Amino acid sequence: MANGNSFGVLFSVTTYGESHGGAVGVVVDGCPPRLPLTEADIQVELDRRRPGQSHITTPRQETDRCQITAGVFQGLTLGTPIHIMVHNQDARPQDYSEMATTFRPSHADATYQAKYGIRNWQGGGRASARETIGRVAAGAIAKKILRLAAGVEILAYVQRVKDIEAQLDPAQVKAEQVEANSVRCPDPEVAAAMIQAIEAAGREGDSLGGVVECIAHNVPRGLGAPVFDKLEADLAKGVMSLPASKGFEIGSGFAGTYLTGKQHNDEFYMTPSGWRTRTNRSGGIQGGIANGEDIVLRVAFKPTATIRQAQNTVTLSGEETVLAARGRHDPCVLPRAVPMVEAMVALVLCDHLLRHHAQCGSLVFPEQGSSLRISPAAPVSS
Amino acid sequence: MANGNSFGVLFSVTTYGESHGGAVGVVVDGCPPRLPLTEADIQVELDRRRPGQSHITTPRQETDRCQITAGVFQGLTLGTPIHIMVHNQDARPQDYSEMATTFRPSHADATYQAKYGIRNWQGGGRASARETIGRVAAGAIAKKILRLAAGVEILAYVQRVKDIEAQLDPAQVKAEQVEANSVRCPDPEVAAAMIQAIEAAGREGDSLGGVVECIAHNVPRGLGAPVFDKLEADLAKGVMSLPASKGFEIGSGFAGTYLTGKQHNDEFYMTPSGWRTRTNRSGGIQGGIANGEDIVLRVAFKPTATIRQAQNTVTLSGEETVLAARGRHDPCVLPRAVPMVEAMVALVLCDHLLRHHAQCGSLVFPEQGSSLRISPAAPVSS
Amino acid sequence: MANGNSFGVLFSVTTYGESHGGAVGVVVDGCPPRLPLTEADIQVELDRRRPGQSHITTPRQETDRCQITAGVFQGLTLGTPIHIMVHNQDARPQDYSEMATTFRPSHADATYQAKYGIRNWQGGGRASARETIGRVAAGAIAKKILRLAAGVEILAYVQRVKDIEAQLDPAQVKAEQVEANSVRCPDPEVAAAMIQAIEAAGREGDSLGGVVECIAHNVPRGLGAPVFDKLEADLAKGVMSLPASKGFEIGSGFAGTYLTGKQHNDEFYMTPSGWRTRTNRSGGIQGGIANGEDIVLRVAFKPTATIRQAQNTVTLSGEETVLAARGRHDPCVLPRAVPMVEAMVALVLCDHLLRHHAQCGSLVFPEQGSSLRISPAAPVSS
Amino acid sequence: MANGNSFGVLFSVTTYGESHGGAVGVVVDGCPPRLPLTEADIQVELDRRRPGQSHITTPRQETDRCQITAGVFQGLTLGTPIHIMVHNQDARPQDYSEMATTFRPSHADATYQAKYGIRNWQGGGRASARETIGRVAAGAIAKKILRLAAGVEILAYVQRVKDIEAQLDPAQVKAEQVEANSVRCPDPEVAAAMIQAIEAAGREGDSLGGVVECIAHNVPRGLGAPVFDKLEADLAKGVMSLPASKGFEIGSGFAGTYLTGKQHNDEFYMTPSGWRTRTNRSGGIQGGIANGEDIVLRVAFKPTATIRQAQNTVTLSGEETVLAARGRHDPCVLPRAVPMVEAMVALVLCDHLLRHHAQCGSLVFPEQGSSLRISPAAPVSS
Repeated sequence: MANGNSFGVLFSVTTYGESHGGAVGVVVDGCPPRLPLTEADIQVELDRRRPGQSHITTPRQETDRCQITAGVFQGLTLGTPIHIMVHNQDARPQDYSEMATTFRPSHADATYQAKYGIRNWQGGGRASARETIGRVAAGAIAKKILRLAAGVEILAYVQRVKDIEAQLDPAQVKAEQVEANSVRCPDPEVAAAMIQAIEAAGREGDSLGGVVECIAHNVPRGLGAPVFDKLEADLAKGVMSLPASKGFEIGSGFAGTYLTGKQHNDEFYMTPSGWRTRTNRSGGIQGGIANGEDIVLRVAFKPTATIRQAQNTVTLSGEETVLAARGRHDPCVLPRAVPMVEAMVALVLCDHLLRHHAQCGSLVFPEQGSSLRISPAAPVSS
Repeated sequence: MANGNSFGVLFSVTTYGESHGGAVGVVVDGCPPRLPLTEADIQVELDRRRPGQSHITTPRQETDRCQITAGVFQGLTLGTPIHIMVHNQDARPQDYSEMATTFRPSHADATYQAKYGIRNWQGGGRASARETIGRVAAGAIAKKILRLAAGVEILAYVQRVKDIEAQLDPAQVKAEQVEANSVRCPDPEVAAAMIQAIEAAGREGDSLGGVVECIAHNVPRGLGAPVFDKLEADLAKGVMSLPASKGFEIGSGFAGTYLTGKQHNDEFYMTPSGWRTRTNRSGGIQGGIANGEDIVLRVAFKPTATIRQAQNTVTLSGEETVLAARGRHDPCVLPRAVPMVEAMVALVLCDHLLRHHAQCGSLVFPEQGSSLRISPAAPVSS
Repeated sequence: MANGNSFGVLFSVTTYGESHGGAVGVVVDGCPPRLPLTEADIQVELDRRRPGQSHITTPRQETDRCQITAGVFQGLTLGTPIHIMVHNQDARPQDYSEMATTFRPSHADATYQAKYGIRNWQGGGRASARETIGRVAAGAIAKKILRLAAGVEILAYVQRVKDIEAQLDPAQVKAEQVEANSVRCPDPEVAAAMIQAIEAAGREGDSLGGVVECIAHNVPRGLGAPVFDKLEADLAKGVMSLPASKGFEIGSGFAGTYLTGKQHNDEFYMTPSGWRTRTNRSGGIQGGIANGEDIVLRVAFKPTATIRQAQNTVTLSGEETVLAARGRHDPCVLPRAVPMVEAMVALVLCDHLLRHHAQCGSLVFPEQGSSLRISPAAPVSS
Repeated sequence: MANGNSFGVLFSVTTYGESHGGAVGVVVDGCPPRLPLTEADIQVELDRRRPGQSHITTPRQETDRCQITAGVFQGLTLGTPIHIMVHNQDARPQDYSEMATTFRPSHADATYQAKYGIRNWQGGGRASARETIGRVAAGAIAKKILRLAAGVEILAYVQRVKDIEAQLDPAQVKAEQVEANSVRCPDPEVAAAMIQAIEAAGREGDSLGGVVECIAHNVPRGLGAPVFDKLEADLAKGVMSLPASKGFEIGSGFAGTYLTGKQHNDEFYMTPSGWRTRTNRSGGIQGGIANGEDIVLRVAFKPTATIRQAQNTVTLSGEETVLAARGRHDPCVLPRAVPMVEAMVALVLCDHLLRHHAQCGSLVFPEQGSSLRISPAAPVSS
């Protein structure tokens, strides 16, 4: 499927829907059968993503109640496609009538028009952040598989808003700290400063950007692939496909380029349960393959493009004009980007979990009552 | 194809080969027919990538002469798969015998072993930079298509080595400036300092990292896709799949997150030939789709993992040891990464050129002698 | 996407839904933008597929009203995914309670249970013919594209029911003849005999099979691909993925193997508008690529597996038992298979239309106001 | 990869090469690591496919010696791509000079020219049966995996040449019987008649077609997928992508459509080791999923298109002419099609083995020393 609305090879998702169309949704294919799954498993993540959840997010009111209409039977997944949909409720297309003819700077209006010769201009259409509902819903399933099958835990948080930065050890951050405040920064004092800054920007009709950091614990050693589908490459694609993302780092990232090889390398040592690395500048991935250490990555999100301040722009018919956006929007996307980043990381890791299992796991078919191995594994000291 | 050795949907490449196996190669599928193509078109790019090209690259001597063994007939592409191969020549497996049992820190030795239970330890096997020969060869074809079909020009260069940084306006950099020195930095004075630093690191058995910047001119408006396959997402995946890459930025990148929306947005204005943006913090892409401005991106490369200095590590059988690598390697991968980055950017853009053409170009079949349009395009002021 | 619920590369469809779950649906990705499309375009094909349309189909009453909830704006396609769904109405799960524990012979009950360890046994779950709603809906869009872009017309009909066979020249069959009777055989006398036979089988609690033939007119020369994705290979996969299909023939099929090469070959001759073949034993495809003649194929459908007569079978818990199926089912799937075959043929041809266009059509970007050709086409006498 | 030179999702192959270019080859990706593999494993199958192996095949002399140039180390697969190539030797392009300008009836000359505007006319170029070398080589690896992992055995043979037909019980045919004669028909008397008929046709410059039948024993229950990638659909695509194939049947095929449901259904019964079916009209597949019985399929191959007798045709420049083909070709493709059919069946089954394992096998990672199950399987009586 070559049109960019699908993601993943074995655990694959396809999303559809526009901001003010009837509904947005997702088809999840490749989920292992007999996974316990309810709408509540998904709703908890959608609630972290939905608009109107706090005074620093857009006031658009959407409860974003999800429905599973296929793929689950008596509380268990069937192994066939899971379809989850959310109906749009608080649509006010009239708030966006101006956008029918005027391109918002740094938004997708002009490029969609150039590509397709048409666009649904109501609330951004397909370019709206509502598109991410399907990703977050699918990510909730991926998280559950990763947790049950391998104990993987994924946690993202806001590390910086503009120049207000939290000094954090990723390995020590707890989910409760992240969810304890509306900006999703685990340091409460920094969080308070961030909230103030976002409120101020909102009052001025301006917007802010920043950095989301994400850590994945307990990722099984061996996930990934050596060439084009390196684990960091697929993670980069996943998060760089989120609206407003402008940069990606794994492990030491750009800062690591100021070190020498001797300073940067992660030395190995032995533990009773196998080798480990003393440092983790690799960010949990070496040669495209997980090494069992925490995966740590960072994503830059630009300040929201839609602002209330007046800006110079052009119209569909080619006239210069000035636009001061109405409609509802977030003065800072970071707090709601946290569950989106977690979802994309989960989708990548779950897909690679199944892919690694397919090629390198033992061929075990329980219904044949036997474990069929192609050949004995070479001894691995881990 | 789900095993990570292929890249691209319509213009797709599959690479194979290990550092000291018999040969490395690539199959390029989806090339339009009747493109003039010779081995010389490809060799020019391979020569920029090959080892031993200057005193700041690895002394391994490989001429990397390519052969086209399929897909070209009487100087024109056939439309069927093009196969290009390069035989390995200066292989000295004995230089690497130590690696059969000892894992190099921050290299792929340990993770390959964990994933597959086996690895070709000679010269890094599949994890060697020789794997990129296929990418660069395929990229040469992609560049030619982009140039002939749309006038696209792609140019990468070394912008920073460790903390030695060139102050450059990407739009002004010329290919001749880049190729004028062995480090491929267009500023000759900064280049000299970079070369000195790399030589010093090499003498000390250490290594350096840095940043490659890349610009693509004349990318047709409309290339890209709105959701998972956003153009910046595919570019991120492409370059983050290169060995040693640790970070990616498009346009304003991480630095842009320090601005407000009002400061960051690229305002539109009209020209006789359609709309443009006054600034280019978007890096040529809005909403995942090219807006016709220059595409500008940056890639962080870590210092080379293989160094001659002694490091703590472990063996295959689980014992702690000390390794001082022998063998031949680059003290800094940046100069040779330049053609690799260009190749990956070319592969992404060429694939999206064909994809955009497939969905949004007019359905024109010259052999039917008529232009078949699904419906008249809506008026677009561009 | 590797889980078998998607079809097509550039014009790709993903279906979801079970027989008695809440809804069945389809996501269509890759549709060119600005195609006029309404629910009526789709409903007309769904009405040909729906149960209860005549006394020789299952009495299950489903109006199968479709809703387009994404991808269409003001009557035109957006170029982003189209989502079409149909709610299930006349579900009577109690009719199928027996199937929770008893496997119907020659149905999918036992194999789903073996594969997934779970199944939705209500009405056949995912194995129900209701799954084909999404195919037929997507096929309606594909047909419209094929018609508008290239004048392609696809027509299927029942050629044989058990041993009651119509003698037909495919090129002469008209759509009105096919739709003139409930069995969809264009010969009215043979149709009457077929209807009688199906009614008799239905009364006896038995079922019948037969052959659907399909012809596609005006398929552009050049559609297809030379190796694995030969046009006949993709057509074979498409129709052999329909429930109950057991065989496929293109052109002369099995009968052609009784001829010699001299007898079988289609000789070429010239017309003012290019070359043609005097005969069409090739069925419109040579070397995997359409030659411009009518594409003619045949599909064998077995007698419906679900019958009311008593049969020996086993239960989920491994006991032998006797089953006489209740529930509602078709005594002969052929009449309703006609629109399904047309849909699959349309999906294959539309995908190959876009694929051929992508690789071999001129690169034309109207928004750039110019036609960009990679190289002049070699002269082709057609 | 959307250009039709690749096959398979998890066990995927990409072939390249023309009849008289330098070489033909294949890249096999997704092979499990640590599979013992040598060139001899592959050569044995190539020898069954190669030209000149007997007096009823083409006299072109090619030893078709294969080289593995990547992906195998010290006799074991690495898990990274395997590259196998065969150099063309007995090329006599001058024998084919006529084909530069004249289209052979029912061959791919005219359609390649129409699609691509260019073709390698030497020996059929990409449309030559030499393209199948890559398939047969990859199939040899697939067969080995299937045998070692699950005991699967695949066996094809010539069941009919023109109207000379062997009466066979597929389950009883032995490989030795098939390889005991040059036509690969397990009944020696029928084989003798077939050989006589082929020799006679060859003498007359004519050609014959027929039917290859194939059986796969011990296919694990559960392989396959329920909707588009039904096991029979993927098998149909696989064999219908072979040159000269015109029809496909699974199990009862077209003959089964003459039965009623009561006559056709395969009743279940219990054995100590689980359920079985008393008959096998399903051909080992129900609902797209293997049921553990033998998979039985048949493929129709047309008489060879290239014949020495004079035929009417046209030239590249649009003139009518008469062609009596020179060059070397098989008077009947059936004997050499036998290993090709086996190869395609093996590729499909091996891909589905890994796919089934990925989604439905236990998630077992030996290197973690534990078996990770998503949930206990529901009880299955098999």
